[in-house]
Amino acid sequence: MRHIIAVLLQNEAGALTRVTGLISTRGSTNDPTVSRITLVTIGSDPVIAQINAQLLKLVDVVAVEDMTSGDHLARELMLIKLQIAPEHVEAVNTLLRRVGGKVLSAKPSSYIVELTSTEAEISEFIANVGAFGEIVEVVRSGVLGISRANPRLHLVR
Amino acid sequence: MRHIIAVLLQNEAGALTRVTGLISTRGSTNDPTVSRITLVTIGSDPVIAQINAQLLKLVDVVAVEDMTSGDHLARELMLIKLQIAPEHVEAVNTLLRRVGGKVLSAKPSSYIVELTSTEAEISEFIANVGAFGEIVEVVRSGVLGISRANPRLHLVR
Repeated sequence: MRHIIAVLLQNEAGALTRVTGLISTRGSTNDPTVSRITLVTIGSDPVIAQINAQLLKLVDVVAVEDMTSGDHLARELMLIKLQIAPEHVEAVNTLLRRVGGKVLSAKPSSYIVELTSTEAEISEFIANVGAFGEIVEVVRSGVLGISRANPRLHLVR
Repeated sequence: MRHIIAVLLQNEAGALTRVTGLISTRGSTNDPTVSRITLVTIGSDPVIAQINAQLLKLVDVVAVEDMTSGDHLARELMLIKLQIAPEHVEAVNTLLRRVGGKVLSAKPSSYIVELTSTEAEISEFIANVGAFGEIVEVVRSGVLGISRANPRLHLVR
């Protein structure tokens, strides 16, 4: 049977590695033998060059593309659960319409909203919506990046 | 400077662990000290119970919730880049409207589309859109799960 399991973990060094060490992973491209990960990182050019070089040394890595220099799109999905007073529902909906979001569950005690946008707009929405209710849970996909250029990601091996 | 880096890797046992071992991770909740991961897995009840128990043994893990038994929402974001003949643009748009997707880049040689939906509907869209053009790249977030119930995810520590 198929299970969906949510895990909360402390942001300690190695935390994600310890979780992924426990589990196997599958998919996220249209090729079942290959997975795709988008990393967002901050660093000087030499640091980024070093990260890319280290990634390429891993035997599993078949391609690395730094999209920052080229024309690219970066989008994120967020689900947020709010507890709002009924009189604030309209204010939340107005905020949501402005950013193109969608109500998935309209019960004020468990108001669940979906928003696909830029990372910055999602963070701004979270900051603004707090004025109208309590934020119970936030789930974010992290950024998905894709270059506008064709052809596809360059295969390095 | 902020960089967005795409990585393709072979689906070998331990591949993701080797990548995450190289990098540190941040965020995905509204608490900067805690990250949230959604796992989708297939297994019998004893196997799932064992996975949950192993996750809880990790020092970084503060909460585990199997949402499968309760009322929950599961949504995914996909970006797809297509190379389509101009005469097929309308057919792709029709397919896209049917599932509530959005065109991010309308150049037929690099037609980029965003779709937030269920995992099944996204997979179906990918299968159907191939009839109208070449699939150049697919980026999927994987499933984000949230329970309809309030209160929040139970903290076990």
